[in-house]
Amino acid sequence: MKLHDFTMAPNPRRVRMFLAEKGIEITIVPVDLSQHEQMNDSYVAINPRRAVPALELDDGRVLTESVAICRYLEELHPDPPLFGRDAWDRAVVEMWHRRVELEGLQAVADGVRNSSEFFKGRAIAGPVDFEQIPALAERGRQRTALFKAMLDEQLADNEFVAGAHFTVADIAALVTCDFAKVLKMRVGDDTPALKRWYDAVSRRPSATA
Amino acid sequence: MKLHDFTMAPNPRRVRMFLAEKGIEITIVPVDLSQHEQMNDSYVAINPRRAVPALELDDGRVLTESVAICRYLEELHPDPPLFGRDAWDRAVVEMWHRRVELEGLQAVADGVRNSSEFFKGRAIAGPVDFEQIPALAERGRQRTALFKAMLDEQLADNEFVAGAHFTVADIAALVTCDFAKVLKMRVGDDTPALKRWYDAVSRRPSATA
Repeated sequence: MKLHDFTMAPNPRRVRMFLAEKGIEITIVPVDLSQHEQMNDSYVAINPRRAVPALELDDGRVLTESVAICRYLEELHPDPPLFGRDAWDRAVVEMWHRRVELEGLQAVADGVRNSSEFFKGRAIAGPVDFEQIPALAERGRQRTALFKAMLDEQLADNEFVAGAHFTVADIAALVTCDFAKVLKMRVGDDTPALKRWYDAVSRRPSATA
Repeated sequence: MKLHDFTMAPNPRRVRMFLAEKGIEITIVPVDLSQHEQMNDSYVAINPRRAVPALELDDGRVLTESVAICRYLEELHPDPPLFGRDAWDRAVVEMWHRRVELEGLQAVADGVRNSSEFFKGRAIAGPVDFEQIPALAERGRQRTALFKAMLDEQLADNEFVAGAHFTVADIAALVTCDFAKVLKMRVGDDTPALKRWYDAVSRRPSATA
């Protein structure tokens, strides 16, 4: 198995961190998005959606979408469980994972991709170019602040985002908080529970994977 | 178990259709979003995110996020499997489900919520109001057209969205195609494979749930 990856992008980082938490070693194939290598014919043959990450199996099958890749790896390597431990816990993990993605990661991505010079004309990842929408960048910033407040409230009563155990929801949330640094929106003392969690999760060895 | 529901909204429809495919009967509690009942104190006590659907268990626990609810129901009622049949199939279903959500449902929602009179000042579901962004509505329409072309290509070679079996990805895709009628973007003969699938899936008894 090979993971097509770009170190600086948030979604592949979710998969690398997931692999590190599981202790899975895998071949990494860098795709340099800063050089638009995802548009090269050789990569488009692997993933026509022109995005990373992509998991390539030894028989040539390809899986894209970070969470689909993580779920597949969870089935092959169930321990430690990162999608929950029983039916209810798995549902709660899914709920929080989606809140983090829809209210956090999406908001930060709206902010970054619609404002930074690098994404000019490329406001959406994928095969088709879209112009930036400045009002969407501003909305992304506002929603990022709301997201941090929501997590702060949840983490005041819970050690991790989805409860008592470290899960994919924590991975998505850490990646979101670090991605928000591009917007100069760092986790600070105004959200003390989020800060406590952020410092702890940032110290995990997987955080630098 | 009770499902807090609003008939006309796309996300609760995903859960109702899932329940119908499984043959699960459940108490439905209507929350009239057209009257902003999701903002009433009694509903906010159930779901502080002020959105439907929400699944309320007999012991008072509440689960939100449509897909979290469906995953929980899949664990309680595994047959017929709607999230895939083995590790690889489940990963492929997840991949296509996410493509439908991120490239389809999100695009249509951007188009509808940022243009229709009803959503003025309410461009994002949830506790905080956001103004509409007309450029985002237009981008949503463009992405909806791309989404339909992507599905048409996939359905030229596959009976269902994620392959040989009907799954949650088909539910999300049907709901997305019907939601796009609000944008007057109907499935037509310009996407023949999508049309073949759309007509077939629309005839399932669950489609009117």
